[in-house]
Amino acid sequence: MKIFVVITGTEFTLGLKQEKNSLFIAREAVKRRCDVVGITVVPDEMYRIQFAVRMALDKADLVVVSGGLGPTEDDLTREAVSEAIGVPLVFDKDWLDRIKTQLKQQGRQITDRIKKMAKLPYGAKRIENPVGRALGFIKVLDDVNKAVAAVPGVPSEMRPMVIKLFELLQLKEKEPLIHLFRTFGKPEAEIDDILADIDGRVLNSSPKGVDVFITDRNSFFLENKIKVVRERLGQLVYTEKEEEMEEVVGRILKEKKLTLSTAESSTGGLISARVVNVPGSSQYFIGSVVSYSNRIKTDILGVSRTDLEKYGAVSEPVARQMAEGVRVLLKTDISVSDTGIAGPTGETPQKPLGLHYIGYSDSRKTEVHRVVYKGERNDVRTAVSQFALNLVRLNLR
Amino acid sequence: MKIFVVITGTEFTLGLKQEKNSLFIAREAVKRRCDVVGITVVPDEMYRIQFAVRMALDKADLVVVSGGLGPTEDDLTREAVSEAIGVPLVFDKDWLDRIKTQLKQQGRQITDRIKKMAKLPYGAKRIENPVGRALGFIKVLDDVNKAVAAVPGVPSEMRPMVIKLFELLQLKEKEPLIHLFRTFGKPEAEIDDILADIDGRVLNSSPKGVDVFITDRNSFFLENKIKVVRERLGQLVYTEKEEEMEEVVGRILKEKKLTLSTAESSTGGLISARVVNVPGSSQYFIGSVVSYSNRIKTDILGVSRTDLEKYGAVSEPVARQMAEGVRVLLKTDISVSDTGIAGPTGETPQKPLGLHYIGYSDSRKTEVHRVVYKGERNDVRTAVSQFALNLVRLNLR
Repeated sequence: MKIFVVITGTEFTLGLKQEKNSLFIAREAVKRRCDVVGITVVPDEMYRIQFAVRMALDKADLVVVSGGLGPTEDDLTREAVSEAIGVPLVFDKDWLDRIKTQLKQQGRQITDRIKKMAKLPYGAKRIENPVGRALGFIKVLDDVNKAVAAVPGVPSEMRPMVIKLFELLQLKEKEPLIHLFRTFGKPEAEIDDILADIDGRVLNSSPKGVDVFITDRNSFFLENKIKVVRERLGQLVYTEKEEEMEEVVGRILKEKKLTLSTAESSTGGLISARVVNVPGSSQYFIGSVVSYSNRIKTDILGVSRTDLEKYGAVSEPVARQMAEGVRVLLKTDISVSDTGIAGPTGETPQKPLGLHYIGYSDSRKTEVHRVVYKGERNDVRTAVSQFALNLVRLNLR
Repeated sequence: MKIFVVITGTEFTLGLKQEKNSLFIAREAVKRRCDVVGITVVPDEMYRIQFAVRMALDKADLVVVSGGLGPTEDDLTREAVSEAIGVPLVFDKDWLDRIKTQLKQQGRQITDRIKKMAKLPYGAKRIENPVGRALGFIKVLDDVNKAVAAVPGVPSEMRPMVIKLFELLQLKEKEPLIHLFRTFGKPEAEIDDILADIDGRVLNSSPKGVDVFITDRNSFFLENKIKVVRERLGQLVYTEKEEEMEEVVGRILKEKKLTLSTAESSTGGLISARVVNVPGSSQYFIGSVVSYSNRIKTDILGVSRTDLEKYGAVSEPVARQMAEGVRVLLKTDISVSDTGIAGPTGETPQKPLGLHYIGYSDSRKTEVHRVVYKGERNDVRTAVSQFALNLVRLNLR
């Protein structure tokens, strides 16, 4: 089934708020093997909503509208949908009675504004709202094999009502036809070359690496593809689940009963904050020293003052001594460190913007990697934190 | 000017990723008094992108497409736009040469895949990419007074290129008809009550507080509303700009020439990482000790072992001694600390989930605040980091 999602809300087209409902609706649709052929966000204007619904009906079997079912003047979805499909609005008497009873219990009278929340297009099937008053609906169009549904925009109301909508349509969750590989270590273009002959791949690049989604219409072929991709990507893959690097690293540390500390300069505590993201991290994470100032590098972490002057803060020896220093100071099995120039300023002829030294230390060895990441300050720092955590994974695998 | 935004990306219609670029584009458009009449997200399919562009051109003066300009096979925006407007693609020779030179310096040869990133519709004006290789463009249509532009989907490339696009169009930022107040300290419903009689307000709640947008079609009336709102919200407002608390705090510290350190338990380095988010933070930020393990609280920060045993790690005395300890250890003027139960487990009959003690210390005093935040682990920690930074702001105001 082809689905088009229409979201109404002037707050989104004014750029005031991040629209998130379409992600939920798309995800639930895909779980039921529906194709989302498009998502359109329009302001709360009668004509815009109407046009979007008509256009969407032209392209899909089911149009799901979210938003604009509330009591205020700019809640226009009911009217716009009924106009778009040429069907009048009528009251759902039962729902109206329920609202009246509810209000009476609160000692309140029903108003016209509230009343309209019990309206739906003639012949539509209602979708009850488990939280609020706004009624949702699905209306199958008479002359074509298509339907339009509407649910509120409030996420806590929208979510259960979308699930109900799919139940009404008897669309059940199926075995997934998407498999995720999260990779770190190679740029998107290189990963894409490695997988050039694999159809139905979706690559998604971020400072945390490249996510590879493998899709297929058939679960047998999907399984085969997964095997091929797994072999080709090898140790680039840090997980095949929707989880973060810190969860993977946390699991390994817990299994091996090893403790971790970090000494951070450029990342400023980001590695540590990410490790602590994981519930139960207190089992393996001890702590961290953020040595943003050079004084902390020498006074607390014991980095040699001579080396600091000779090689500079962004250097191999400093990254090495930071890693070793924090491991000894906080008495952990393993440590990571970083020092670098995240930007936007601070480069020198010898040291380009984005240059980082990232250290890993355990009782047997210390290793330091030199990397140069381009991009915005915070993207660079995220990439560095990912590199550091990945070092722990690769060393303990 | 009416603008329609078209976002391409199968990852969005498959529900694999939150689409965020349209928010940025809408915001920048609105700053220039453009109307965003719609946003459409389509999968990376030639026909869908083409249709979306044509439909958008029908409804708007300018269509901005984001995504699908990369080197991979499912990067189809160039081709789809050129088909949709009936104009062939040609190479931008100068940009192609630049890519070649750049690759040569890296000892690499250009490939067909990379080459295509230097293509644009015949007669289009190029929009240079300050970060990556994919060229953006704007093409004014010959027969109608409309234009279509394309920029990459990678946010760090998209953002500066959208700004450039508006510069090319000579659309300057106008006196805004939207005013932002970022508040911290009261829940959304209370803020809404305070502002109940102010029309045209949009509230947006997050762990970092409640953002209040005040809008009006008329700048005179907007100015009046702003004055009223400013007075009513008072010290709840930490900024009236699009900036983060760490930027506000950083500015104050720089002005007052004061240095900051943090001692973090529950937040695990998040406060520190946020402070370091701000370029130039090395002027006032010295470092941090993440004392996730109790051992670090006592051994490094000097928290009393007796108090730790008597009151527990999540307690007023421990937060106090952490703040004081790190201020002395790292020799800073000011410090903040936190200790708490971020969840999802760890509560006791006396200490509910979400309980946190947050400390502030300077040479004159140390204060500790008790808060209980409900919600997901990371939302709770974000709220705690916001509270701690806000303490610095309130104490130095």
